[in-house]
Amino acid sequence: MPIKTLEDLFTDGVKDIYYAERKIIAALKKMSRGAKSQDLKAAFDKHLQETEGQVERLVQVFELLGKPARGKTCPAIDGILEEGQEIMEEFKDSEALDAGLLAAAQAVEHYEIARYGTLKSWAMQLGKNDVAQLLEATLLEETNTDQALTQLAEAKVNAKGKQKAA
Amino acid sequence: MPIKTLEDLFTDGVKDIYYAERKIIAALKKMSRGAKSQDLKAAFDKHLQETEGQVERLVQVFELLGKPARGKTCPAIDGILEEGQEIMEEFKDSEALDAGLLAAAQAVEHYEIARYGTLKSWAMQLGKNDVAQLLEATLLEETNTDQALTQLAEAKVNAKGKQKAA
Repeated sequence: MPIKTLEDLFTDGVKDIYYAERKIIAALKKMSRGAKSQDLKAAFDKHLQETEGQVERLVQVFELLGKPARGKTCPAIDGILEEGQEIMEEFKDSEALDAGLLAAAQAVEHYEIARYGTLKSWAMQLGKNDVAQLLEATLLEETNTDQALTQLAEAKVNAKGKQKAA
Repeated sequence: MPIKTLEDLFTDGVKDIYYAERKIIAALKKMSRGAKSQDLKAAFDKHLQETEGQVERLVQVFELLGKPARGKTCPAIDGILEEGQEIMEEFKDSEALDAGLLAAAQAVEHYEIARYGTLKSWAMQLGKNDVAQLLEATLLEETNTDQALTQLAEAKVNAKGKQKAA
């Protein structure tokens, strides 16, 4: 077997996030159905649409790389989403459910921020500037989503979780 | 069973990150042994020491909450660390190994940034300002570590991964 390169690491990473994004689409649909507050539902729905665009961008990345769009099982996103699922079950009837769902979504966002940040750096290192630009566009969306979720948590969702629980 | 509250969600989250931090200590030791570059080894060792202090802070949090320090299995960190382990195996002989290890460490940092950010918000919402201060101190360390890793990647590690692979 030939020794693996940064190019291989990069390709594996793109496959990994492609798998992750498609799992995230399924999870966002479920979380939107589960959310009690209209604000949180709207935030999940907005990000669902964005995520569909991000998958499209990854398809473009595969095209630029001259490789078929193919995912690679990503145990990290599976674990992160499993934790979100646990919260949906354990806090189903709780007024704190939305706070838990929002936190689960932020764990997902941060995973994506870490991965897209890394992939963008590697793409630049490998001289793939067109690919890096696509990854940068998604990175920006993920960062903005994370900030919007923090604002929603602190302005509304956490307080509501506490209020009804008292 | 009584309906769960934001307080329950918070306590579960503290147990989850307590489990995660102890897994991260074991992983950082392994990653430091695996890293080829002295700079990356040093970064991992520095963060290992910090992480030991973060576990101590969580013990203080449990004391302030009047609860025994006990972890709760966290599938998210298990998945994130599994992915790091895969890279260690698949890129063992590759000059891109360090770039992969560094990326794995940043995925860990981002998980912690998400969790400590959420837990700090919930602690403040619950009026636990002393607990929130402890969580904030750790959050700051995690953010700084992530930035230091980005600098190290872009200044040295990624370029080395590419150079030797060419």
